[in-house]
Amino acid sequence: MHFNKVTILGVGLIGASFALAMKKQGLCGVIIGHGRNPENLQRAQERGIIDSFDLDPARACIDSDLIVLATPVGSFFDITKKIRDSLKRNTIITDVGSVKGNLVHTMDFLMPEEIFFVGGHPIAGNDRSGIDRASAELFTGTKCILTPSEKTEKKAFDKIVSLWESFGSVILRLDPGEHDRIYAAVSHLPHLLAYMMVNTVADINAAYFGFSGTGFLDTTRIASSHSELWRDICILNKENVIASAEVFKQNLDRAVQYLRAVDSESLEREFRKARTLREGIGQN
Amino acid sequence: MHFNKVTILGVGLIGASFALAMKKQGLCGVIIGHGRNPENLQRAQERGIIDSFDLDPARACIDSDLIVLATPVGSFFDITKKIRDSLKRNTIITDVGSVKGNLVHTMDFLMPEEIFFVGGHPIAGNDRSGIDRASAELFTGTKCILTPSEKTEKKAFDKIVSLWESFGSVILRLDPGEHDRIYAAVSHLPHLLAYMMVNTVADINAAYFGFSGTGFLDTTRIASSHSELWRDICILNKENVIASAEVFKQNLDRAVQYLRAVDSESLEREFRKARTLREGIGQN
Repeated sequence: MHFNKVTILGVGLIGASFALAMKKQGLCGVIIGHGRNPENLQRAQERGIIDSFDLDPARACIDSDLIVLATPVGSFFDITKKIRDSLKRNTIITDVGSVKGNLVHTMDFLMPEEIFFVGGHPIAGNDRSGIDRASAELFTGTKCILTPSEKTEKKAFDKIVSLWESFGSVILRLDPGEHDRIYAAVSHLPHLLAYMMVNTVADINAAYFGFSGTGFLDTTRIASSHSELWRDICILNKENVIASAEVFKQNLDRAVQYLRAVDSESLEREFRKARTLREGIGQN
Repeated sequence: MHFNKVTILGVGLIGASFALAMKKQGLCGVIIGHGRNPENLQRAQERGIIDSFDLDPARACIDSDLIVLATPVGSFFDITKKIRDSLKRNTIITDVGSVKGNLVHTMDFLMPEEIFFVGGHPIAGNDRSGIDRASAELFTGTKCILTPSEKTEKKAFDKIVSLWESFGSVILRLDPGEHDRIYAAVSHLPHLLAYMMVNTVADINAAYFGFSGTGFLDTTRIASSHSELWRDICILNKENVIASAEVFKQNLDRAVQYLRAVDSESLEREFRKARTLREGIGQN
């Protein structure tokens, strides 16, 4: 497997780490970067993450064999519309977005003939962002979810599987809709709660931040995540995020009821249930 | 400063680390442990954390110069009533509990003549528990909150300050009621939310835990905390925890409203506010 020309649309932590991993594995000829910030692209080029860059996404994709969408998910449709007439036949487009579901079906619909889309979501990066934290090993040992639809071409899919496997990722294959139900619960809602937990302390008294310990820091670490990116993710997956938030609110309301009633036994039962489940997942 | 005999009531992570730190600093003669679990006390003795133990708390406190309450906070009043007639004059009782407020005033009230209570709360330990994780350095570089009341004897208070300073802790002095308002917001509510976040995923689909990444693990790490201990803390500080939970629910409801209305701008404003605040606290 070898791609002569690869285009990375969005050279942030994930896009840059993808480029570095491609180079490390010797899977590509040249890598072209595109993004909104020329200084960032310049730095990425100077560090050898990309070989050149183009501020025009369509021009950046000309003759590319592999195009990686690594911009905030909210921009995928716009950017796809801009590049779709500049693509050569048999090009594979993949993405690293945290939302799949309808997004995958819309991407399938936007693809010209003989251009193949494969939806992907590496579970890596966390609260970090930017090329300074990028690494060829970012994906080693982490999960990468791939979400083929009925329109996904088998050969293109197999290539994307091989590519992530060569990065050391563990591939999990999910239906796009199921992906979004799962990640609303285990990622998108936790991000929303972390942001709101920080704002809650600010509402009560911002001076209280100075008294926080490692528990607060752990719990709110993902509130340092890129706000525009997470706005897009939550909005694109809003039905599932809202449904998960409703289940959360039922749990919180029940706990508050137990507190009000000083129902120690029921409160401890809830805490013990959570503790047992959490210990079952492991620490890291 | 030297204490001939020290009694640790509750030989868990914090009690055992306190004992190890006392020994390392050469601040004591013998250390007697008390707890509910004889096997645990036996192991603590074998490892040199305590010199001996007694299953009767009153007997464990006879002739002690310093008594450390390190059991779950819900047991403080019971245990104080059991030991109060066995204490010698000028004994100092201190604690390491996560709740202060009325608890401090009740402890003051329960103290016999010439027995001095000093409320303390080291910000250390997090989700861990048990003597296996105990260390003489657990408190080094961490905050220790001391909460003197109008009844706190100055000499006893100064000794407890010196003691924690010798462990390498940074001392912060707070009014007991203010302590509870602060820690409801930055610790007790975050624990409640972490427990409820885990139970939310279990309610939706427990198989989803297998797809979680480091964000979920960070956010729910404190859901591995001791359930009986945290039940006690939340109940003893329930007014403040409920008030903080109300502010949190307002924030969550507002975010869900923005999602429903696809109000990207307002949602991003909330996320950006949280991100800026969280980055201001630092990562660890």
